[in-house]
Amino acid sequence: MPPRARRLAEVAAAFTPMPEMPFAIAVPGGSVAPDANWRRLGNRVRASRAAAPASYGDPRGVMELRHAIADYVRTSRAVHCEAEQVVITAGTQQGLYLAGRVLLSRGDHVWAEDPAYPGMTAVLDDLDLVTTRVPVDAQGIDVDAGLAARPKARAAFVTPSHQYPLGMPMSMARRNALLAWAQRQDAWIVEDDYDSELRYAGHPFPSLQGLDPSRVIYLGTLSKVLFPSLRLGYVVAPAPLVDAFAGARALLDRHSPTGDQHVLAAYMREGLFEAHIRRIRGVYAARRATLIAALDHHMPRNVTLQPSDQGMHLLLWLPQGADDVHLAKAALADGIVVRPISPMYRVAPRPGLMLGFGGFAPEELEAAAVRLRRVMDRDGSQRRTQPRRAS
Amino acid sequence: MPPRARRLAEVAAAFTPMPEMPFAIAVPGGSVAPDANWRRLGNRVRASRAAAPASYGDPRGVMELRHAIADYVRTSRAVHCEAEQVVITAGTQQGLYLAGRVLLSRGDHVWAEDPAYPGMTAVLDDLDLVTTRVPVDAQGIDVDAGLAARPKARAAFVTPSHQYPLGMPMSMARRNALLAWAQRQDAWIVEDDYDSELRYAGHPFPSLQGLDPSRVIYLGTLSKVLFPSLRLGYVVAPAPLVDAFAGARALLDRHSPTGDQHVLAAYMREGLFEAHIRRIRGVYAARRATLIAALDHHMPRNVTLQPSDQGMHLLLWLPQGADDVHLAKAALADGIVVRPISPMYRVAPRPGLMLGFGGFAPEELEAAAVRLRRVMDRDGSQRRTQPRRAS
Repeated sequence: MPPRARRLAEVAAAFTPMPEMPFAIAVPGGSVAPDANWRRLGNRVRASRAAAPASYGDPRGVMELRHAIADYVRTSRAVHCEAEQVVITAGTQQGLYLAGRVLLSRGDHVWAEDPAYPGMTAVLDDLDLVTTRVPVDAQGIDVDAGLAARPKARAAFVTPSHQYPLGMPMSMARRNALLAWAQRQDAWIVEDDYDSELRYAGHPFPSLQGLDPSRVIYLGTLSKVLFPSLRLGYVVAPAPLVDAFAGARALLDRHSPTGDQHVLAAYMREGLFEAHIRRIRGVYAARRATLIAALDHHMPRNVTLQPSDQGMHLLLWLPQGADDVHLAKAALADGIVVRPISPMYRVAPRPGLMLGFGGFAPEELEAAAVRLRRVMDRDGSQRRTQPRRAS
Repeated sequence: MPPRARRLAEVAAAFTPMPEMPFAIAVPGGSVAPDANWRRLGNRVRASRAAAPASYGDPRGVMELRHAIADYVRTSRAVHCEAEQVVITAGTQQGLYLAGRVLLSRGDHVWAEDPAYPGMTAVLDDLDLVTTRVPVDAQGIDVDAGLAARPKARAAFVTPSHQYPLGMPMSMARRNALLAWAQRQDAWIVEDDYDSELRYAGHPFPSLQGLDPSRVIYLGTLSKVLFPSLRLGYVVAPAPLVDAFAGARALLDRHSPTGDQHVLAAYMREGLFEAHIRRIRGVYAARRATLIAALDHHMPRNVTLQPSDQGMHLLLWLPQGADDVHLAKAALADGIVVRPISPMYRVAPRPGLMLGFGGFAPEELEAAAVRLRRVMDRDGSQRRTQPRRAS
């Protein structure tokens, strides 16, 4: 077996889709999936000449969609860009891979948040980059800690709208500190802005990209507000780098299928996209409120909820010493899908579980919270089953 | 600008789609595109529960499609496989990239045919592999030349059905020699079987994969027999490597959009796919015959046609010393798209042009042959404009 193959097989296991049971993350179905409008519009668009079966397209994507995305991120996220800077991707995963390929070379040092999305850190490892994990506190990435550990990194991969997996936004002070570091070091910032559309209270911070468009690669995805199986997202890159992103994309797989790009462009142009987001924001807000109330009611006292005003998941902190990986396995056997967060840390300060609420009706969430409590009581791992000394 | 970015921007330029004018390659439209059956079936399948908007899927692809592909390649190409060995890709380009990632590591030596598909050699370069270009003769890759130049390569990337760009199939003797080498060296063979469905005379050789399934990664594409903008293809990998291919795919972009995978599975299951191939084989055979006759009639005597019984393009050899790159540029200004072959060689023995006939009606092909002759006469580069000594 080739040397890389074993490592890649482990990656495959980590990406195996979870069953669509509460609290799985990213399950759009029923009332949150795009409705018959999406399908009927698709049928109409595919019957048109523009979206009919066609030859190879531009690796940057369909121009009409690039325009629609540029308009959207300018308005909704204060992203500073022209349509020519938008490169359509197959989603955030591909955006991360492309950014790594274009910006960095083997052996380069990069910052990643600690904790972080495993699909991102796996890309950094696969590209043979040297990753410094930078801790996250209530304000987001601790820039001073990064400066102390590895000041001369070439790039930072961050989730400023909604830290993955903890959920807090990066404060304005930290945004400025991170950009100041990048300017001084001539480093790049890769801004994964997933979940930015789903904010339930207060005003969002502007994107990092809008604060310094020359230093930031902005990654957006349609997996959260439309559906993951569509496999569409986008990169907004500084103009001088757009051709390199296009070249990297062409090498990987040429371009995204063009039919759905035309459908999405029409969906956005006709105002259906923004209407859909308004609608699901309301649905998710209600589900979130239900889940928070259910957790308040059903969780033991030593389990606490991480505050967050955004996104499609909540984070439950377990007591010190609990085994979140074991608890997640036990829950799965009971029809509950939770993600343990300790594997997302270099060194986890505390175990925890991610609970997705996006794909489930309020009564399902309520019932699942009761079931999760039962699993906790039976499993015992939410108690301090393996006492450790503080180190 | 990051060091890789400039090189990747050059790759983007090489992948920029050509205008859809004769003799562009891979232009399915009009009577060769899948017809209203494909679209209506798509509308129907997308309205079903299975193909509705969904969450993340398996990086290996939709199981139903993997079964349909396995059935198809077993029957049509003597590929020896189970559905579990099929990994759905975004096309041959991604199949090549995945094979490089899974099988090989930086600095590994590989064989590539000379000449070869530039999108393939660009992948080998991008993965920092060391490529030995192995000459091709009338029987395909010259295995003895490869043995003399670099016996201990780790893999060979070949196009045995229809050498790209020259068009001959690899002889049975060469197939056996290549497999014997791979067995001795414990090396891999990556078999790009593009265009294998489009054979106009005689019996095809069985796939290399069918001759030794343990050594061969088989790459298939739907871009040629359906349409490129669909972005679907497949890898058939030895069973122990399937998880590694899935992991590499997950890292790159998780998986192909699932809607079209369900549509294609239904299209194959209902027999529409094979009927489509039968239909377009007839269309292409007629176009090919028209183009051959037109070239016989209109080309100067010092231009010769490379014999080939397969595929969607023909190869014209130009006289020694002609500048095929310059001639292609001059033709483009006249509304004719030809691909020069000298950039596909390490050292070209002779200049030549690829002429795609798949996307154009017989009368367009006839008229374009006349126009190409006029460009040649005016340009003068089909004559020996830059005399060189034989080296």
